[in-house]
Amino acid sequence: MIIDCHGHYTTAPEALNEYRRLQVSACECGKCEIFPRPVISDDQIRESLETKQLRIQRERGTDLTIFSPRAVGMGHHIGDERTSSEWAIVCNDLIHRACQLYPENFAGVCQLPQSPGVEPARCIPELERCVKELGFIGCNLNPDPTGGYWKDPPLHDKWWYPLYEKMVELDVPAMIHVSGSCNPHFHATGAHYINGDTTAFMQFLTSSLFKDFPTLKFIIPHGGGAVPYHWGRYRGLAQDMGLPPLKELLLQNVFFDTCVYHQPGIDLLLKVIPPENILFASETVGAVRGVDPETGHHFDDTRRYIDAAVLGEADRASIYSGNAYRVYGRLKNRA
Amino acid sequence: MIIDCHGHYTTAPEALNEYRRLQVSACECGKCEIFPRPVISDDQIRESLETKQLRIQRERGTDLTIFSPRAVGMGHHIGDERTSSEWAIVCNDLIHRACQLYPENFAGVCQLPQSPGVEPARCIPELERCVKELGFIGCNLNPDPTGGYWKDPPLHDKWWYPLYEKMVELDVPAMIHVSGSCNPHFHATGAHYINGDTTAFMQFLTSSLFKDFPTLKFIIPHGGGAVPYHWGRYRGLAQDMGLPPLKELLLQNVFFDTCVYHQPGIDLLLKVIPPENILFASETVGAVRGVDPETGHHFDDTRRYIDAAVLGEADRASIYSGNAYRVYGRLKNRA
Repeated sequence: MIIDCHGHYTTAPEALNEYRRLQVSACECGKCEIFPRPVISDDQIRESLETKQLRIQRERGTDLTIFSPRAVGMGHHIGDERTSSEWAIVCNDLIHRACQLYPENFAGVCQLPQSPGVEPARCIPELERCVKELGFIGCNLNPDPTGGYWKDPPLHDKWWYPLYEKMVELDVPAMIHVSGSCNPHFHATGAHYINGDTTAFMQFLTSSLFKDFPTLKFIIPHGGGAVPYHWGRYRGLAQDMGLPPLKELLLQNVFFDTCVYHQPGIDLLLKVIPPENILFASETVGAVRGVDPETGHHFDDTRRYIDAAVLGEADRASIYSGNAYRVYGRLKNRA
Repeated sequence: MIIDCHGHYTTAPEALNEYRRLQVSACECGKCEIFPRPVISDDQIRESLETKQLRIQRERGTDLTIFSPRAVGMGHHIGDERTSSEWAIVCNDLIHRACQLYPENFAGVCQLPQSPGVEPARCIPELERCVKELGFIGCNLNPDPTGGYWKDPPLHDKWWYPLYEKMVELDVPAMIHVSGSCNPHFHATGAHYINGDTTAFMQFLTSSLFKDFPTLKFIIPHGGGAVPYHWGRYRGLAQDMGLPPLKELLLQNVFFDTCVYHQPGIDLLLKVIPPENILFASETVGAVRGVDPETGHHFDDTRRYIDAAVLGEADRASIYSGNAYRVYGRLKNRA
């Protein structure tokens, strides 16, 4: 069993993009509006998945993708709370339909209706709807709904606590995932994503968040940003601050995915992070779509790197599926 | 010969900090003022270095440190242009005195008087003074003088070009180095530093900066932020954009230091980045000061990792000193 814990619906039917363009251009003109939700047929959903995600699952021999709306498309910085709310409902409903059409292949994770300056508590109704009514098993949480300006409170601020309480109650983890950047400094997939991962980890390290929420769970995607590469730095910083070892401080609550697109990166990840904290993922179809001329395989075919790594079979099985069942508490009931 | 290309005067005499406290508190009260520059004796400088940087050089068997003012102390976001100008002069003069007292042990790199919203061209007089009058061999360039809000233009913007022209004319490279963060999202040494490195690299990747300045040289510290760990991602992103291979695109102009504080991180760096693009560094006395309980040695004793790495002797010599002579064109004349 191979579970890919990080897939976005990047290939959604064009009607979704058209709907979003209407939303965005209305907001750009200073008047955010509510538009009729897009009409998309089951066949359009099937076609958008059969030729992409499902084909790739078959080709690469993976079984289930934990599937959420396109991350760069969340665009929480655009428009107001109502814009984000409508957009989240539309995107989450589409994920739900994909999961209903292919229940063996997809498990749903929701986009939250975050909006700059709006309390995360306001996301609770949509989270509850997705988990209780649509059977979703997690959410994506944007640590910077201001789109690259980082103006709302950090993740350890009490601002976030009501949402965390609900996550714990529902037994759903969050993947920390920024969206697009409207700050010209930050290329989305090349800088903002990776910075978001690194930033979140350091916010966890310097806070008592997991004392307050001992069972709260976060997945840091893109192999944990810069964190495993600088694991010595983080161990040293924690030690200089008089904190316990990182394993004790964070690793009951923080997990890393395997979206690292070359063998040496994966080898490093597996070397420094305990196997029980690593979840297989590829973010396919995602940020990097080409074939690596050095290997002849797709950069994002991360299964090849895991298969090629020096790793005991029990650890490999944990990374491929065991840890996902542990982190996504609702996955087992669903299966 | 072992050259440490990344050392800050983090142990400067207390009179320097007192001066800065005066500056900062005046600015905090809304009235930035000019204060009498601090009076520091040669003996105070000697004492601050003998017991720290020089002792560590001796203990670790390194020869020369490329030495600049404390990075987190630059604080370009504090006060106005005159605040930054005075502060840069004071800090740079102190570096100059350290270099004069220990010409065998230190080569100077300057802090620039950057200030939010102020054109980088305004830094040229201080850069020229440091290089021409004080014999400095490079500068530290803060890609975010707004202290964690990233509000000024990115590094490929023409905003920066006059400064780059001067750097090329003077034959001095810049180390890309953010300073402190006043954004509560970003821990300085654990997030802002590493994000700054990653961000700068991606700005270089997506721009034609090095077409415009073929001989401009940047050192990205902290082992290049997240970049080597995600080297496959960056190779793939560049390829998807139709850009040439990274080696051709960037590696005539962009170099990485070795401030990565554990063996697996250094091993990865050496595996994916060509040896001619790596410069030895430790950032001692710096961000991480403790002893790694896993090795019994200081986290920042990076010489041990380089010595322990699988590496040909010619490559090791390049990393220890050859590349520094190539990147810092003025180093050889100085020696």
